[in-house]
Amino acid sequence: MADLPGPDRAGAPGVGDLVFGGHDVAGPPLPKRVAMLAEGGVVPAGLPGVLEEELAAVEARIRPGAAPSRGRAQREAAARIEEDLRRFREEEGLDRVVVVDVSSTGPPLPPDGPAAAAAASADLLEEALDRGGAPLPASSLYAYAAFRAGCPVASFTPGPGPCLPALEEAALREGLCWAGSDGKTGETLLKSVLAPMFAQRALRVRSWSSVNLLGGGDGETLSDPASAGSKTASKGRGLRSMLGTDVAGPLHIDYVPDLGDFKTAWDHVSFEGFLGVRMSLQFTWAGCDSALAAPLVLDIARLTARANQVGETGPLGALAFFFKDPVGSQEHALSAQWDALVEWCARLGREGEGA
Amino acid sequence: MADLPGPDRAGAPGVGDLVFGGHDVAGPPLPKRVAMLAEGGVVPAGLPGVLEEELAAVEARIRPGAAPSRGRAQREAAARIEEDLRRFREEEGLDRVVVVDVSSTGPPLPPDGPAAAAAASADLLEEALDRGGAPLPASSLYAYAAFRAGCPVASFTPGPGPCLPALEEAALREGLCWAGSDGKTGETLLKSVLAPMFAQRALRVRSWSSVNLLGGGDGETLSDPASAGSKTASKGRGLRSMLGTDVAGPLHIDYVPDLGDFKTAWDHVSFEGFLGVRMSLQFTWAGCDSALAAPLVLDIARLTARANQVGETGPLGALAFFFKDPVGSQEHALSAQWDALVEWCARLGREGEGA
Amino acid sequence: MADLPGPDRAGAPGVGDLVFGGHDVAGPPLPKRVAMLAEGGVVPAGLPGVLEEELAAVEARIRPGAAPSRGRAQREAAARIEEDLRRFREEEGLDRVVVVDVSSTGPPLPPDGPAAAAAASADLLEEALDRGGAPLPASSLYAYAAFRAGCPVASFTPGPGPCLPALEEAALREGLCWAGSDGKTGETLLKSVLAPMFAQRALRVRSWSSVNLLGGGDGETLSDPASAGSKTASKGRGLRSMLGTDVAGPLHIDYVPDLGDFKTAWDHVSFEGFLGVRMSLQFTWAGCDSALAAPLVLDIARLTARANQVGETGPLGALAFFFKDPVGSQEHALSAQWDALVEWCARLGREGEGA
Amino acid sequence: MADLPGPDRAGAPGVGDLVFGGHDVAGPPLPKRVAMLAEGGVVPAGLPGVLEEELAAVEARIRPGAAPSRGRAQREAAARIEEDLRRFREEEGLDRVVVVDVSSTGPPLPPDGPAAAAAASADLLEEALDRGGAPLPASSLYAYAAFRAGCPVASFTPGPGPCLPALEEAALREGLCWAGSDGKTGETLLKSVLAPMFAQRALRVRSWSSVNLLGGGDGETLSDPASAGSKTASKGRGLRSMLGTDVAGPLHIDYVPDLGDFKTAWDHVSFEGFLGVRMSLQFTWAGCDSALAAPLVLDIARLTARANQVGETGPLGALAFFFKDPVGSQEHALSAQWDALVEWCARLGREGEGA
Repeated sequence: MADLPGPDRAGAPGVGDLVFGGHDVAGPPLPKRVAMLAEGGVVPAGLPGVLEEELAAVEARIRPGAAPSRGRAQREAAARIEEDLRRFREEEGLDRVVVVDVSSTGPPLPPDGPAAAAAASADLLEEALDRGGAPLPASSLYAYAAFRAGCPVASFTPGPGPCLPALEEAALREGLCWAGSDGKTGETLLKSVLAPMFAQRALRVRSWSSVNLLGGGDGETLSDPASAGSKTASKGRGLRSMLGTDVAGPLHIDYVPDLGDFKTAWDHVSFEGFLGVRMSLQFTWAGCDSALAAPLVLDIARLTARANQVGETGPLGALAFFFKDPVGSQEHALSAQWDALVEWCARLGREGEGA
Repeated sequence: MADLPGPDRAGAPGVGDLVFGGHDVAGPPLPKRVAMLAEGGVVPAGLPGVLEEELAAVEARIRPGAAPSRGRAQREAAARIEEDLRRFREEEGLDRVVVVDVSSTGPPLPPDGPAAAAAASADLLEEALDRGGAPLPASSLYAYAAFRAGCPVASFTPGPGPCLPALEEAALREGLCWAGSDGKTGETLLKSVLAPMFAQRALRVRSWSSVNLLGGGDGETLSDPASAGSKTASKGRGLRSMLGTDVAGPLHIDYVPDLGDFKTAWDHVSFEGFLGVRMSLQFTWAGCDSALAAPLVLDIARLTARANQVGETGPLGALAFFFKDPVGSQEHALSAQWDALVEWCARLGREGEGA
Repeated sequence: MADLPGPDRAGAPGVGDLVFGGHDVAGPPLPKRVAMLAEGGVVPAGLPGVLEEELAAVEARIRPGAAPSRGRAQREAAARIEEDLRRFREEEGLDRVVVVDVSSTGPPLPPDGPAAAAAASADLLEEALDRGGAPLPASSLYAYAAFRAGCPVASFTPGPGPCLPALEEAALREGLCWAGSDGKTGETLLKSVLAPMFAQRALRVRSWSSVNLLGGGDGETLSDPASAGSKTASKGRGLRSMLGTDVAGPLHIDYVPDLGDFKTAWDHVSFEGFLGVRMSLQFTWAGCDSALAAPLVLDIARLTARANQVGETGPLGALAFFFKDPVGSQEHALSAQWDALVEWCARLGREGEGA
Repeated sequence: MADLPGPDRAGAPGVGDLVFGGHDVAGPPLPKRVAMLAEGGVVPAGLPGVLEEELAAVEARIRPGAAPSRGRAQREAAARIEEDLRRFREEEGLDRVVVVDVSSTGPPLPPDGPAAAAAASADLLEEALDRGGAPLPASSLYAYAAFRAGCPVASFTPGPGPCLPALEEAALREGLCWAGSDGKTGETLLKSVLAPMFAQRALRVRSWSSVNLLGGGDGETLSDPASAGSKTASKGRGLRSMLGTDVAGPLHIDYVPDLGDFKTAWDHVSFEGFLGVRMSLQFTWAGCDSALAAPLVLDIARLTARANQVGETGPLGALAFFFKDPVGSQEHALSAQWDALVEWCARLGREGEGA
């Protein structure tokens, strides 16, 4: 969207105005990672050299992430991250910090477990943290810390993140907004234009089967059925909404290491037309998830910053365009999401004029 | 669209209110054709039996079409068709007749030839017909006769049809509307949702290659390069409009007789994302053109009738949703076409209320 | 293969010389089943009418199959099937009866369970049957009865069938042959020509991912993970053998009811060539399993009958051409299997001459 | 095939024993070309650096190719190439030189033209050259010079090359062998395993449609219909041979520049099984032609050298495995070609032992 009238028109900060930092639990340092991406064909071969200095500067701003914490340690971990965020904002002299969660997929929160119970309100959550119940999954721990530090949050991965009643309550109390969740980069992106087409043409979809072959770290995480649950739930929701009915068909996510940073998705749609005649559509999407995600992450960060600047609070439904499982919006069809985004950007742009 | 709020909401006549007639140049009678479709799996096996009486009734209303006519014979042919249309309206006691062109694809009009010159205005056309210039291609001959008989026209095939200055002038003089052209049933339908997706996501399309394997009569006609010219021109226009730039890649239409009434289209899209990384999408559409076209033809006929009833004149841009090469509209993206159609239907529906 | 020089050249009985009977556990009678196949587009619409008499005659020869039996009932069930086979041979005045197992896929035999222990030798098996251990899975129960009745066996489904030491011992004692297992009709058929191609061209296969979408009864059975185990094991074995190494990649079998008697398989092969450059092949196979299986079943029955006639005993490795998981052969490459079959047919044909 | 028992078993010279030279009409020097291949992802990024010295050495041995020559200049061009070949052999102290034609595709020889007449015998050819008839197309000019210099020839591109009566006569007189033509690297390779599968399984192929999207220089050449004629003829021949009948369906070769050194081929096969039921197979091959061709060229050069060493003369039918349009063989099925090659290599290997 870089050259479409999105963030710019909204009056969002330019990419060059951003300062990048982060938390990371492990893994090689940033320059090494970019070198690996260059080797895998994801970024141009010369890039690591050209950006050596910038990458080192960002690496220096990356702080240790929070390891899975038990008991009272979770409150301490949250406090440490909150402090990191405050210091980052001060030291860099920033107007605001947007926390974007691009970590690996975590498992969904068991709906009837103690964690869900603790997440039901801000008070219950504080209580559970105090007594060492360690109720927050990793993605929500960062959101909690972010909201306490006065930072809006965008959740690019599936999993609870900021979308727990307790955290939403906290965000609203602080006058913050949040966006999410699960960046829509590939197969689901296609579904969000193809499913409305079938509906508008009254072509009844009989089954929709989906296979995702992923290499890379994401594929490995998703080969764990517990984590995959978040993802397949997130991917499935939209189809039902766009077609107005449940649709049969498997949804597989498979780890195929040799694909590296690339992904191949195959979908088979069986549908029927006039007088029941059977037809089919199949597509193969061969994409590079990181390359598809990167510009979205930039746009989301810029737009969330702008939303925060003009005082938007609550879930940013206007950013549904970017997500598989949008917060603050029931809309899954890409074109309707696009229209909503364009309108919202225009409105934010006008606010800028008045300022 | 039968169960979506299109024609019904617009206050269009119901399918049961329609009386079907037509002109046909040759071929087996209608009951035989339906039997052939049943054999080819396009309609249920029992249908020809169930509809025996209705099909015979329609067959009785089909009049001989106009054979290619030279010299002064063309004016006579036009007069005969006009007379047929008037008599059909009278004998059946109809409020109005909509002429839908579902004939085979004809060649485009050579832009600098005498026919194009004659078609430049109603006066020039009349003059050319008088002196035996036979300037009208088949699809336009019917449109000419239809307009003279006071009938709106919908052009479901590629080719000039009603879209010649002389005919448009005549239609406007009679206060008539027209719709077209070239029904969007398969590969182009997909392009009209996928191309906007690439544009909205700022994924630069590097090439878009299209192959259409068609059996049936349409495939045979289109294996004639002269006729195919209309089709490929019609199919190509939209992509440029939706992507904002010319896109490389072949566009083939091949006649593969064994496919019968079915069609298989394969498209290969090469595109690039962040920092130029290359990706691809390919799809295969296995559809039944007749089954995809039939409900569109019904909706178009009903909506054109309704437009005529409420006094709409000129090209019906709101029907762009149905066409590869829409008249009265520059919009090729399906979702925008859909929005325009829904709004237009709602407006026509309100006119009905006031009546 | 009907018109290729297989069974005919081998001197096998003609299709017209066969008399069909069978055992079936349930389901509608044969004429009704054929009517359902006609409705699903698997056989011509007129066929059930044309074959009414023949189908009724076969239906009259179908005997109740053996329900899952416990304790001593299993010996009784086996005795009843054996008796059915003897009577069928006598009443129809047949030279021999070939038992072909085309039942649904059953689960594999747990390798360390009591059933496997009992199947280790003919004596142990008899003992287990006597004491009511009911050691035989359904497919093996029929094979047991068949061998006792002096009938060769062909196993067209996955699962143990005749391939248990105890049964093989019994068959050899009776001088019988057997063939199997798991008819190679679709995706595995393609693998058996594509994998040798990669090997012969020294193109290293990096991953091979397979998805099978099946409607119909077979799909339903295979949606049960226990039964699917037999199938995926059977499908996986060949690839390793043909490529000389294990290959990563998922193998899914999914039940997609709306596909009816048809199946769609998608395979994605990632491979590398000179100096490690990455390439890919993908294919989609849209086939009708029943229609692909039927001629193979006929050929297998005829060839097994012929093998029995000329006194072949033991596993019929020459029939590997027909099977995913061939008995008596380590060969999975189709062309090598074809060569072996052609040679074997020629040899059997010559035996006929000498007779 | 590098690690399969082909050239090595045949006693062919090792890759390390080869000395590379060549003729080239134009284009950047070899090190630059390899750098371009590295940029296009065809060879590893570091390769140009590692091989700098070797590439410069080969570049130094590349001689100017023959520009299209008219009149008497053609005889002079041939003499110059012959002299180049002799000098290369002497200066490098080589046992023998194999000339492999890897030039761009040239047009086929018009069957009734003067060139074809001149190519009918060695005498007529000499006469035509003497009188300035310039009868030889480029690919045959090199073959002519090679044979005069005592070198066997392998033709990796389509076009006449050594396959003209006059040249074959000359080769036989010199006791030379030749191989060709048109390396089988992609879509045709797949056809050569899939078509035999359909035949062996008695699945009647109803249509076979092929689309080849090529970037790179080869694609550009083949977008010229005259040159494409050689290629499509070469590609079409095999299918007829393997299926035993003509098969309908288009065969397209399209130039899609953005694909660079890569190629995407899509084939759609419509076939029928038992009682006429319709099924389909489609595949997409995304390959790198240069990377697929390179190891074949090495194997062909080594095997042709070995054949020359042991005194084979005439067309090398045993090398059909490598070619779309094999000389000296009617066999197009890959597995049969493979068997023939393996056997031939074994025979040549044994000759080595006797020496």
